[in-house]
Amino acid sequence: MNIEERLLEKKKAVEQGLERVLSQGDSLLFRAMRYAVLSGGKRFRPLLTLSSGECFGVSRDVLLPFACALELIHNYSLVHDDLPSMDNDDFRRGKPSCHKEYGEGIALLTGDSLLTLAFEVLAQAPVDEKLKSKKEQIIKEISHLAGVNGMIGGQLMDVTLSPGELTDKIFNELIQKKTGALIIASVKTGSILGGATNSELGAMVEYGKNIGIAFQIRDDILDSASEAQEGQLARPNSVSLFGLEDSKCRVKNCVEAAKAALDEASLESEELNYLASKLLELGNRKGK
Amino acid sequence: MNIEERLLEKKKAVEQGLERVLSQGDSLLFRAMRYAVLSGGKRFRPLLTLSSGECFGVSRDVLLPFACALELIHNYSLVHDDLPSMDNDDFRRGKPSCHKEYGEGIALLTGDSLLTLAFEVLAQAPVDEKLKSKKEQIIKEISHLAGVNGMIGGQLMDVTLSPGELTDKIFNELIQKKTGALIIASVKTGSILGGATNSELGAMVEYGKNIGIAFQIRDDILDSASEAQEGQLARPNSVSLFGLEDSKCRVKNCVEAAKAALDEASLESEELNYLASKLLELGNRKGK
Repeated sequence: MNIEERLLEKKKAVEQGLERVLSQGDSLLFRAMRYAVLSGGKRFRPLLTLSSGECFGVSRDVLLPFACALELIHNYSLVHDDLPSMDNDDFRRGKPSCHKEYGEGIALLTGDSLLTLAFEVLAQAPVDEKLKSKKEQIIKEISHLAGVNGMIGGQLMDVTLSPGELTDKIFNELIQKKTGALIIASVKTGSILGGATNSELGAMVEYGKNIGIAFQIRDDILDSASEAQEGQLARPNSVSLFGLEDSKCRVKNCVEAAKAALDEASLESEELNYLASKLLELGNRKGK
Repeated sequence: MNIEERLLEKKKAVEQGLERVLSQGDSLLFRAMRYAVLSGGKRFRPLLTLSSGECFGVSRDVLLPFACALELIHNYSLVHDDLPSMDNDDFRRGKPSCHKEYGEGIALLTGDSLLTLAFEVLAQAPVDEKLKSKKEQIIKEISHLAGVNGMIGGQLMDVTLSPGELTDKIFNELIQKKTGALIIASVKTGSILGGATNSELGAMVEYGKNIGIAFQIRDDILDSASEAQEGQLARPNSVSLFGLEDSKCRVKNCVEAAKAALDEASLESEELNYLASKLLELGNRKGK
């Protein structure tokens, strides 16, 4: 298999894992959870967990529940972010967003359920006795990075800061929290399970931090292109702050810094390098 | 100290524990979290965790983080339940509800943050090596009972069932999930940490199940009294379904069944019996 095929095969394993954890019931809430999660998506975070874990020799079976939990957390955040009191987005991945399809109350509960289920999946992840303390460490890391000091903190900045307050430094903090924190959690999870040394973990965090920034700026570039077509006004993003050329340049620098971090720590992962390089491609907008 | 004083002292320890975990930052989100959590409340669930754990000889220091995590989960559910798309409650514990004070978007993120923080507190709870597997079991139990098959599932029933669908059986399922599940989680947590046998755990669950029902029906009785005063219309509750006298009778029966469950398993806990008996008192409405 070439690298594209290997990553596609990993993505399929993630889809199957997600389908499994979301097929425990058939209530309206389970249907809404499946609607929100099983409708496309790049599965970028779980791929990072699988690729980073395999870089240290961890088996797919061990990694998969953790990878799925991270994707559940990502999807809960999308469902809640789309709500009218937040970004008020009517569409997600080309379909009506969860609250447009199921109503606001159900969408709220769907997000809550996905977040809670993520921690149930983490707690139930089957690991050997010797990995139990690492699992505990991972639950700490994920809850911290997904919480008020990480992802939710970034979301707070996104909804409360006025355009005038968005300096370069503050905007960087915003995207590092909003997008970067869960991406860092994804590579940390695989690395911790694999028994990474402190310096290896540091390199993985540096990789995650840089691709997190690249991922968000690239997303803004793609958003700006489609918004220019649709004539919508959006809140400030990388493109409106830095301009298109500077934004592209930042993506390129971050991707290079991400690869360099792995290289310096002698972490060889064709997949992690490939996933970073893919962020340089600015093709058509697909599922967000 | 008499029993009232002992419980008051426990409640103070819970308040201090909550203040500690909520004092890590001073962002708008932390202020909103503190507003939502540190403004009264009976701390019924954490008291159950402390009392059930001490019944098996577990120390206060070990129990406290778990007790606080359960209260954080309870409070996240209140913040989200109060939102306009759910119960649309303007007041909570005699003060403007979180979204009335901070706006809907911040209230949404406040609930998300409290839920995420609860799992961080659980993962960080310091326990001896020999209690680590019990801690893992507790995270499984709590995430399960707080999730789509437990508390959130009950909330779904509450917002989706029409009055005509509320049979006695379905209403019982609703309150057992919506209110009972987290109360059961609270006594299970203390019992699991204390190394309860299966039959002792079964008795504790039976106790929790019964006081969960008693707690909710009592709440409905108190709600009905204040709503009658205020002339509000509410969705169906125990009183509108069963009538006032039958509701009181159900509370009494559940409290007796709860105590009998402990008695049959030879679990002696003056506090757990007292907390059950307190549900028979129908004094003035205080913090919900």
